[in-house]
Amino acid sequence: MSRKKHYNEQWENEPKLQIIPLGGLEQIGMNITAFRYEDSIIVVDLGMAFPTDDMLGVDLVIPDITYLLENRELIRGFFITHGHEDHIGAIPYILNQLNAPLYATRLTMGIIEHKLEEHQLLEGTDRHVVQFGDVIKAGRFSVEFIRTNHSIVDAAALAITSPAGTVVHTGDFKVDYTPVYGDPIDLQRFAEIGKNGVLALLCDSTNAERPGYTASEKTVGRTFDQLFQEYEDTRIIVATFASNVDRVQQIINSAAKFGKKVVLEGRSMMTIMTIAQELKCIRVPENTIIDVEQLKNYPENKTVIITTGSQGENMAALSRMATGQHKKISIRQGDTVILSSHPIPGNEKAVTNVINDLLLKGADVISQDVHVSGHACQEDIKLIYTLVQPRYAVPVHGEYKHLIAQRKIAEELGIPKKNVFIMRSGDVLEMNRGGAEIGKDKVTVGAILVDGKGVGDVGNAVLRDRQHLSEDGIVIVAVMLDKETGELVGEPSLQSRGFVYMREADELIEDCMDLVTEELSHALDKGVRDCGKLKGILRDELGNFLWRRTERRPIIIPIIMDVRA
Amino acid sequence: MSRKKHYNEQWENEPKLQIIPLGGLEQIGMNITAFRYEDSIIVVDLGMAFPTDDMLGVDLVIPDITYLLENRELIRGFFITHGHEDHIGAIPYILNQLNAPLYATRLTMGIIEHKLEEHQLLEGTDRHVVQFGDVIKAGRFSVEFIRTNHSIVDAAALAITSPAGTVVHTGDFKVDYTPVYGDPIDLQRFAEIGKNGVLALLCDSTNAERPGYTASEKTVGRTFDQLFQEYEDTRIIVATFASNVDRVQQIINSAAKFGKKVVLEGRSMMTIMTIAQELKCIRVPENTIIDVEQLKNYPENKTVIITTGSQGENMAALSRMATGQHKKISIRQGDTVILSSHPIPGNEKAVTNVINDLLLKGADVISQDVHVSGHACQEDIKLIYTLVQPRYAVPVHGEYKHLIAQRKIAEELGIPKKNVFIMRSGDVLEMNRGGAEIGKDKVTVGAILVDGKGVGDVGNAVLRDRQHLSEDGIVIVAVMLDKETGELVGEPSLQSRGFVYMREADELIEDCMDLVTEELSHALDKGVRDCGKLKGILRDELGNFLWRRTERRPIIIPIIMDVRA
Repeated sequence: MSRKKHYNEQWENEPKLQIIPLGGLEQIGMNITAFRYEDSIIVVDLGMAFPTDDMLGVDLVIPDITYLLENRELIRGFFITHGHEDHIGAIPYILNQLNAPLYATRLTMGIIEHKLEEHQLLEGTDRHVVQFGDVIKAGRFSVEFIRTNHSIVDAAALAITSPAGTVVHTGDFKVDYTPVYGDPIDLQRFAEIGKNGVLALLCDSTNAERPGYTASEKTVGRTFDQLFQEYEDTRIIVATFASNVDRVQQIINSAAKFGKKVVLEGRSMMTIMTIAQELKCIRVPENTIIDVEQLKNYPENKTVIITTGSQGENMAALSRMATGQHKKISIRQGDTVILSSHPIPGNEKAVTNVINDLLLKGADVISQDVHVSGHACQEDIKLIYTLVQPRYAVPVHGEYKHLIAQRKIAEELGIPKKNVFIMRSGDVLEMNRGGAEIGKDKVTVGAILVDGKGVGDVGNAVLRDRQHLSEDGIVIVAVMLDKETGELVGEPSLQSRGFVYMREADELIEDCMDLVTEELSHALDKGVRDCGKLKGILRDELGNFLWRRTERRPIIIPIIMDVRA
Repeated sequence: MSRKKHYNEQWENEPKLQIIPLGGLEQIGMNITAFRYEDSIIVVDLGMAFPTDDMLGVDLVIPDITYLLENRELIRGFFITHGHEDHIGAIPYILNQLNAPLYATRLTMGIIEHKLEEHQLLEGTDRHVVQFGDVIKAGRFSVEFIRTNHSIVDAAALAITSPAGTVVHTGDFKVDYTPVYGDPIDLQRFAEIGKNGVLALLCDSTNAERPGYTASEKTVGRTFDQLFQEYEDTRIIVATFASNVDRVQQIINSAAKFGKKVVLEGRSMMTIMTIAQELKCIRVPENTIIDVEQLKNYPENKTVIITTGSQGENMAALSRMATGQHKKISIRQGDTVILSSHPIPGNEKAVTNVINDLLLKGADVISQDVHVSGHACQEDIKLIYTLVQPRYAVPVHGEYKHLIAQRKIAEELGIPKKNVFIMRSGDVLEMNRGGAEIGKDKVTVGAILVDGKGVGDVGNAVLRDRQHLSEDGIVIVAVMLDKETGELVGEPSLQSRGFVYMREADELIEDCMDLVTEELSHALDKGVRDCGKLKGILRDELGNFLWRRTERRPIIIPIIMDVRA
C-alpha cells in the first residue's frame, strides 16, 4: 500500500507524533512507551518483567533503553501510571543511566521512593507528586493525570497532548463504581477529553478475552465478611498481593468486625503497608494490628494473618508456613487459609503445590471466588472506547492474543481495521490528524537480564550453557603434557557435576580415564601438539563415548596443561 | 485410638487384605498399587510420571519397586486398567527386573506391546488379552475386568476378590452414556457387584473438585461439526492427545463430512493410530487419510491436519509448525487451529505461548470448549458410590486436594469419616469384613529418575548440582604444582560455563587469576601441601571474591595437579 493511501495530503507534511513501545507488547510485563514529537520525548512507565522459564538463574528483566540513551537530551520526563513492578521496576536501573523528572501520583511515588532509597538514588532524582487533574508541561507535550481504578490505589490514565492531537493511555485500569478507597474512575473527564477529539487510545488489553464487566473490589469485602462469619472459630490466614492495599483494607475491616487481631507477614507486605499507612491510603482501626511476636498472647480464633505468597512463590511467607520452614508461624489442623488471588499464568502449578501442602497440614483451604481482577473486561473496554471515541486504537499491555482480542472489540465498535494498530516493541507508530502508519524503521529494543549485580552480562550464550548444564551436567578432564617429549605427565583428572553420581560410577570413570589416556597418546604419537586440536579430540571422543554409555550429552571441558610452560 | 476400636473382635484374627499404593497418591501420575492376601500379590497398573520442574534433565520417573522385588515369588500378575502412560509407562523398566503375567484389554495390550517391542521385551513377556467380564484367577485373588469409559478406548475397572471380600478399583473413568466407540460403562455390573457386597472402593479422584457431570465425548463431535462448517473455507489444524482415539475418530468424521482430506502428524499420533486401526478401534472412511507429502496436491481448504502438541510441548509437531521449525507444515495466514484439549496443570504457560505464536502467524485459534474431560465429576462419582455401596472408601488417582475432595463426597453419601482412608504411597491399608486400618509399618516407596539410559543414577545430589549450575554456572580453575619445591608451575587456567560471558569479562578473569596465584602462593609459603586443603582455600577465596563482585555463587571446581606425580 502506498503512503498516499494512509495519509490525507493536507496533513502529510505536518509534523507527526511518534509512539514507540520499548517493551510490554510481547508479554505482560516490562511496560515502557516513548512518545516523541519533534524535539520532545516523554516516557510512560519504566517497568520490569519477571524472567521466563528459559532465563535460568536470572533475577529480573529490564528493557533495553538504547533509543532513550541516544536521544537523552530530548527526554522531558518519565510519567508513571501506577506502582506495580511491571510499570516501575526498571526505574532504578534506568535512572542510573538517564536522568529526567519523574511524575507520579502519591502512593505510586511513595513506592518508587522506597525503591530509590534502596538503590541510593533518592537524592539525585527530580520527583513530582501529581494530583489527578494536574496537567504537566513537558517540552511540546502536556500530560494530564486522570483517576482510574485498579488493583492498587492511585492508578492513573494519561491524556498526552501534543500539536498532533491528544492521545489517551489508560494505564492498567478497571471500572469500579464503588471502590474501597477514593473515588471511581473519572469517566466524566474521559468523556470530556473524548468530546474534544482524541487521536488515539492506548488501552489495557489484559482482560480483553473476558466477556462482561469486572466486579467491584467491594464485592470481595462482602465475601470476606461471609467467610469470617463461617470460619469464626478458627484462625484465619489470608494470602494476597502486598500491593493490593484495598484488599488488605477489606481483610482488616472484616477482622475488626469479628474482633480479631491482625498480623501482617512477608517483607513486601510490611513495606507497602508502611507506605500506605504513612500516606493514609489505608485506615487501620486502633488496636487491630499486632506484631507476630504477640500472636501467642491471643486465642488462635481471635487472630488473622495477612501474608504474601498467594502465587505459590517458594520463598514467600505462605509457602514457608505451609512447609514448616517459617520461623514464627506454622499451619495447624483447623486453620482456615484463604487464597485471595488468581494464579498468574505460569504459576498455576506452584499455587496447587502450596494448596496441597496446606491441606496436608490439616488446614481448610478456600481459593475460589475470593478475588476480583484489577483489569477491565470486554464491556468495560467498550465503555472507555465509547467515551473517548479515538480515531486510532492501539491495544497495549498484553500478550499477542490479548491485543488481538482488543482489536476485535475496537472493530465491533466501528473503528476500521486499518485504524487499529497491533504494535510490536520497537515499532514506531507515526500519526497526526491526517493519518497514521507504522514506519519501516524500528528502534533498538530488547530484554536486559539482571542477575545479582550483573546487568546485561548474562546473555544468550550464558543462558544456553545454563540450560545445557541443567539438563546433562558437565564433565571436566584435565591432563598434564610435556610438549617437548610429547608425553603425558601423571594421570588425567576427571570430575563432573550434575552428570552422574560419581561415587557410584567407578566403572564409567575408569573407562573414561582409559579412553582419555589412549586417545591422547595416540594423537601425541602421531605428532599432534596443538592444544586446540588435542582438546577437540578429547571433546569429541569423550562426548561420543558418554553418549553411547549414558545417552546424555554433558558439556565437556578439556584442560591441557603444559608442564614446560 | 486402640486397635480394638477399629476391629470387630470376631474378625480380628482372620487374615487381612493389604492394599499398598506404591505411587500415584502424591501427584497425578505413577499409578501402581499392590494388593496382598497371604501368599498372593497382584499389582494394578505400572505407571510412570513426568518429571516435575525441579527434576532438571530427567526424562521420566518410575516407581521404586523394592517391595515387589522383596516379594517377587508372591506376585501372581500385573493387571492394567488402560493404556495411558501414567498407568503403563513403567512396564518395560519393571519387567526388566520382575516377570509376571500381564493382563489387559485389547487396545491397552496393543499399546503395551508396542512399548515392549521398543524395549525388546515382547518375547519374554507372558501376555493375556482380557475381555470385559473375564475373571482371572491369580493366587488367592480373582480379578474381573469391568467396562468403563475414559479418554482412551478399552478402559477397565477391576473387581478384585479375595477371601477378605471384594474391592472395586475404578481405574480412570467417566460415565459416558453415548460413547463414540463401544458401549457405555457397565453400570449394571457395578450394581450387581455392589449388591453382593463390596468391602472397599478405590475411586478416581481427578475431578472430585468439579461439581456436576462430565459431558459425553459425543458432544465434542457436534462441536467439531459446527466448527468445520464455520471454517469450511480454511485449512483446519486440530491438536489433541494422540491416545484419545475417539477424539481423532470424531475429527476424521467431521473432515469426511465436509469432504476434507486428513493428515496425521506427530510420532505418537502415528503410532497410536496405527495400533487403533489394526485393532479396529477406529473406522476411517476410505480415501480420507493422506500422507503429509500429498498435502500439496489438494486445495488448502480441503485439508485437515490432526497433530500432537496440544499441551504446548516444545518438540511436538504443533509447536514446530507455529515457530516455523516443522519441515513439512507451516502455519499460514487464514489457517484455523483448534486446540482440542485442556492444559494439564503446569502446562498453561506453554500452551499460551503456542497460541500467541499461532496468532502471530495469522491463524485463527480456537481453544475454548472443544474438549471434555475423561474423568468423572462429583455427580458421576456419587453414582458409582451409590451403585457399589462400599464399606470403606479409598480415594485414589489425584493430588492431596483431590483425595480430600472425594472424601467429602463419600461423607456426604453417608460413609463414616473413619471408613474413608486418605492414603500416602507406602502406607499399608489392612482390611477384612471385621474392620480396616492403616498399619504402622510402611513399605519402601520412591521415585526413580530415568535420564537417558540411566535408571536411578541421577539422584538428589546430581539434581542439586544441576539446579545450582542452572542458576549460577560453574567456574573451573586448574593449577600445576611442584610439590617438592612447593611452587606453582606455569599460569593457572580459568574457565567457566553459565556464569558470565567470558569474552566480555577480561578484568574479572584477570583479577581471579591474580587472586588464585596469590592465595595459593601464600598457602604454599606457609607450608601447606595437602591437596584437599589447597582446594578448600581456592574454593572459599574464589567463591567469596566472585560473590562480592557479582552477587552470584557459581560452583567452583579447583583442580590441582602435581607435576611430580
